[in-house]
Amino acid sequence: MDLNALIRDVPDFPKPGVLFKDITPLLADPKAFGYVVARMAAHYAKASLGAIAAAEARGFLFAAPLALELNLPLVPLRKPGKLPYKTHSFRYDLEYGSAELHMHIDGVAAGARVLLVDDVLATGGTMAAAGKLIEQAGGTVAGCAFLIELGFLGGRAHLPGYEVFSLLTY
Amino acid sequence: MDLNALIRDVPDFPKPGVLFKDITPLLADPKAFGYVVARMAAHYAKASLGAIAAAEARGFLFAAPLALELNLPLVPLRKPGKLPYKTHSFRYDLEYGSAELHMHIDGVAAGARVLLVDDVLATGGTMAAAGKLIEQAGGTVAGCAFLIELGFLGGRAHLPGYEVFSLLTY
Repeated sequence: MDLNALIRDVPDFPKPGVLFKDITPLLADPKAFGYVVARMAAHYAKASLGAIAAAEARGFLFAAPLALELNLPLVPLRKPGKLPYKTHSFRYDLEYGSAELHMHIDGVAAGARVLLVDDVLATGGTMAAAGKLIEQAGGTVAGCAFLIELGFLGGRAHLPGYEVFSLLTY
Repeated sequence: MDLNALIRDVPDFPKPGVLFKDITPLLADPKAFGYVVARMAAHYAKASLGAIAAAEARGFLFAAPLALELNLPLVPLRKPGKLPYKTHSFRYDLEYGSAELHMHIDGVAAGARVLLVDDVLATGGTMAAAGKLIEQAGGTVAGCAFLIELGFLGGRAHLPGYEVFSLLTY
C-alpha cells in the first residue's frame, strides 16, 4: 500500500523553512489507517508486551486501535494538569524552553514490557521522556513504533538501546 | 459489563469541589475498552455515516478505533496552531475565557453525515463547537457519542437537535 501518497507536505509549518508531514489524509482513509495499525500489530505480535503507552495527542490515534488489536492496556502520557490521579513526571528540553510529560503512578506495572507509539519520530525528545516515565515506574521499553521517521533529524540517537520501528522514513 | 467499576472518582480535580471521572482504569482494560467501541459501533452501524470527528486529546482515544471498526474517515479537531493546512475555526466560551477549535477545510465533504465522539459530555461546549465546524464545512451532525454523560451539568441542552448517545450517566 502506498502510504506515502497519503502524507501531505505542508511547507513552512510550524515555522518558515520546515516541511511538515501532515497525516490527516491517511486518517481519512480507513483502509490505509487500518493497514498501519495492522503492520504495527504484526511487528509486535510476539514481543510479549504488557502495555502500550502514547503521548497526547496524535500518539493516541495509533496507540488506541493498536492496544485493542493486541489486547493490551493503553497508558496515556499527558501534559501537566491533565491526568487527575497521582503521577510520575519527566521534564525535557525543547528547542526553546522545556516540556513535561506525566503518567499515572499506577499506569505501568513493575516489570511490564511497554511499547511506545507515536505518529512521527522527529528529534526524539518526547519519546525519550516517555521511556524515562516507563522506567521510573519500573517497566521496560520493549520498542518504539512510528508511522513516520524523519531520519534527517537523528531522533534514533536520542533513543539509545530502544528498538525503533517505522513504516515511512524521510 | 460493569463499566462503572472501571471509572475512578478523583475528588477535587481539576479544582476543589469537582469530582473527576477518571477513565484511565477503563483504558487499561482492553476487554472493557473494546466493549465501549463495539457498543458505539453497533449503535451507529446503520446511521449512513460519512465520517467520524473528534476533538483532541481524549476524543481521539475512542474515535480512532471506532473509525476503523466502522470503516470511516477520521477527522481530527484540534486546538489552534496544531493543524498544518488551511482550517475552519470556531471560538467558544469557557467558564473563564474562551477556546478555539479547528478543522482542516477538506476534513469533511459537503453533505457528509458526521458522528462526533468524545469521552465525556460535561457542559457540551466543546461538542457544540465541533458541530459548528462540521456545519461550517457543509456537513451535518448525525450524532454525538460519549462514554460518560455528566447529566447534572446539562450538556444536552447545548446540543439542540443532535442525537446523543452515552454509555454511562452520572
